[in-house]
Amino acid sequence: MNTAKPFEFTLLAQEGRARAGLLHTPHGTLETPLFAPVGTQATVKAVTPAQLEELGASLVLANTYHLYLRPGENLIAEMGGLHRFMNWPHPILTDSGGFQVFSLAASRQIDADGATFKSHIDGSTHRLTPEKSIAIQEALGADIIMALDECAPPYDRAYNEAAVQRTHTWAERCLQAKTRSDQALFGIVQGGVFSDLRQASAECIAALDFPGHAIGGLSVGETKAEMHAVLELVDQALPQDKPRYLMGVGTPEDILNSVLRGVDVFDCVLPTRLARHNAAITPSQRLNLVNANFASDPAPIDEACTCYTCTHFSRAYLRHLILAREMLSATLLSIHNLHTLIHVTKALRQAILENRLHPFIEAYTLA
Amino acid sequence: MNTAKPFEFTLLAQEGRARAGLLHTPHGTLETPLFAPVGTQATVKAVTPAQLEELGASLVLANTYHLYLRPGENLIAEMGGLHRFMNWPHPILTDSGGFQVFSLAASRQIDADGATFKSHIDGSTHRLTPEKSIAIQEALGADIIMALDECAPPYDRAYNEAAVQRTHTWAERCLQAKTRSDQALFGIVQGGVFSDLRQASAECIAALDFPGHAIGGLSVGETKAEMHAVLELVDQALPQDKPRYLMGVGTPEDILNSVLRGVDVFDCVLPTRLARHNAAITPSQRLNLVNANFASDPAPIDEACTCYTCTHFSRAYLRHLILAREMLSATLLSIHNLHTLIHVTKALRQAILENRLHPFIEAYTLA
Repeated sequence: MNTAKPFEFTLLAQEGRARAGLLHTPHGTLETPLFAPVGTQATVKAVTPAQLEELGASLVLANTYHLYLRPGENLIAEMGGLHRFMNWPHPILTDSGGFQVFSLAASRQIDADGATFKSHIDGSTHRLTPEKSIAIQEALGADIIMALDECAPPYDRAYNEAAVQRTHTWAERCLQAKTRSDQALFGIVQGGVFSDLRQASAECIAALDFPGHAIGGLSVGETKAEMHAVLELVDQALPQDKPRYLMGVGTPEDILNSVLRGVDVFDCVLPTRLARHNAAITPSQRLNLVNANFASDPAPIDEACTCYTCTHFSRAYLRHLILAREMLSATLLSIHNLHTLIHVTKALRQAILENRLHPFIEAYTLA
Repeated sequence: MNTAKPFEFTLLAQEGRARAGLLHTPHGTLETPLFAPVGTQATVKAVTPAQLEELGASLVLANTYHLYLRPGENLIAEMGGLHRFMNWPHPILTDSGGFQVFSLAASRQIDADGATFKSHIDGSTHRLTPEKSIAIQEALGADIIMALDECAPPYDRAYNEAAVQRTHTWAERCLQAKTRSDQALFGIVQGGVFSDLRQASAECIAALDFPGHAIGGLSVGETKAEMHAVLELVDQALPQDKPRYLMGVGTPEDILNSVLRGVDVFDCVLPTRLARHNAAITPSQRLNLVNANFASDPAPIDEACTCYTCTHFSRAYLRHLILAREMLSATLLSIHNLHTLIHVTKALRQAILENRLHPFIEAYTLA
């Protein structure tokens, strides 16, 4: 019997800065590091929950902005909450809705109190504040919810100064607004590529005693070296005994480099988006399956992969599905791409547990 | 151990004209009556083979016209044949390609020897003859293949006279052309709504000693009474000891009425096509899931249904997926609709085996 408290984070092993742990949630214990598929509109596109379970998913993300607009958080609450609505009885994380609202560019106005925006669906006007974000996320009922933050362009110093300040104020308001004890609220570190801002943001957020921390504003245009420097700085500034979630990051290479710098949780739309654009991810490369080279190729996408797609279908068949515009191609490629990201991350975890992360990475990088 | 010969048809029970049997094929024994999902382009749209197995599919159809044009029968042969290419290790049936070619209307010319047509994909010119149809179907490698026939408009007497004659000549040429012993070639009865033509066609086709027979040219605009009359006539004219396949029929009501008139095998694109148009089939009705009545309906499509969709998802969730234009709606509705058709047909089979078909149908019709 699992007697751990919800949201307790147990570090099982560390190798250098890399960590392997367990994060307990009301819907099950997560093994970290982990990669979480994104189910923007309460569905991981083209994949059933049964297929997600089979390919090894544990945590799934859903999107507060999208679900607030359609079908509405109250409907989802009435249907028993997001876990039941989308039939994912395992852990779920919702974002704050901020990233999508702030991405609306011309259709939103940000002020100190929050943001006013127009729906991308019908142009209607809405207001998002820290309190509103928490209220929506409490209605949705995910295990892990996120504080409202502001993600500024990585090289804009003045904007990042303001965004860090706002993110801090909003983090406090989110903590105040929160009422449910069965959800963990994570605070978010911002600050662009500026080390002093990142340091200040990490210290402020850490001081608020969230059960977990997220690192926002990365993989949005900065260089890999800048990304790694920020991760190293934040790793030192945040407490070691709480989980770290690097938002929106999801190539095998980025996951590997971020695990090496103390990150525990990842999410990204890339595997499913690439799948819908006919691209397959392997640990070492991307294949565009429309390529005529694959027309009569009886091999699977990746000989070493154990996913449903690779154990049952050839590149030639997948290319046929794509050219024939068959929906099954999106399903089969999504299954493969998600499996790849999840299992690369699981393999990193296992290497940390067995204290062989560096040989693992050397072999991996040479492969 | 199954010692039955390939294509042996064993009648296990009869009740009135209705029959329950076993049809042995090189890829497994089929339990009849059965409903076969259609995998036009070597995929049942939006559904994986694993999902097809789970929902109880046995025989799957594929389309010779489509696969000849794309990816080409030679590629499929090179990839190990259709079973391996599409990962359906169970029985497969291919049609002759004729129905699609003849449906091209302005883009095809029929003559006594076959038909010349333009590809719907790139406008290139192709020729389909009885010999060519068999050669393509032999390359594809299905268990059951179909003779090239001509399906005329149901009320056009002169056209049906010519079509019956041509279908007969072509049936003989298909038998001559056939070389593989691990495929069963079925002959097709035509004749529109005209009982003398149907009688003559059935007698001619029966005399050619095919291992199974199909009934073509129904559910193409005639009345239900006319359809039933043709089925009754053909049931008497065809030998009892061979399977009968009613092509392109697939509502619960039509299947029930046709099983009562001696039909063993059905196929139809309707369940998957309706699914992609947001409609769910139940044994007694059709639901359009876009309907606002379902917006906050926590019930499954059909309380009595045991499919993956009905045991895991609400009407409210399915409606959300549809409005959000999520591909998962097509998958979940296809799973449900196929399950319904397959299990209605299985239930008829079980009733025949237990000699309770008439009470079953009475209860069913009242439900």
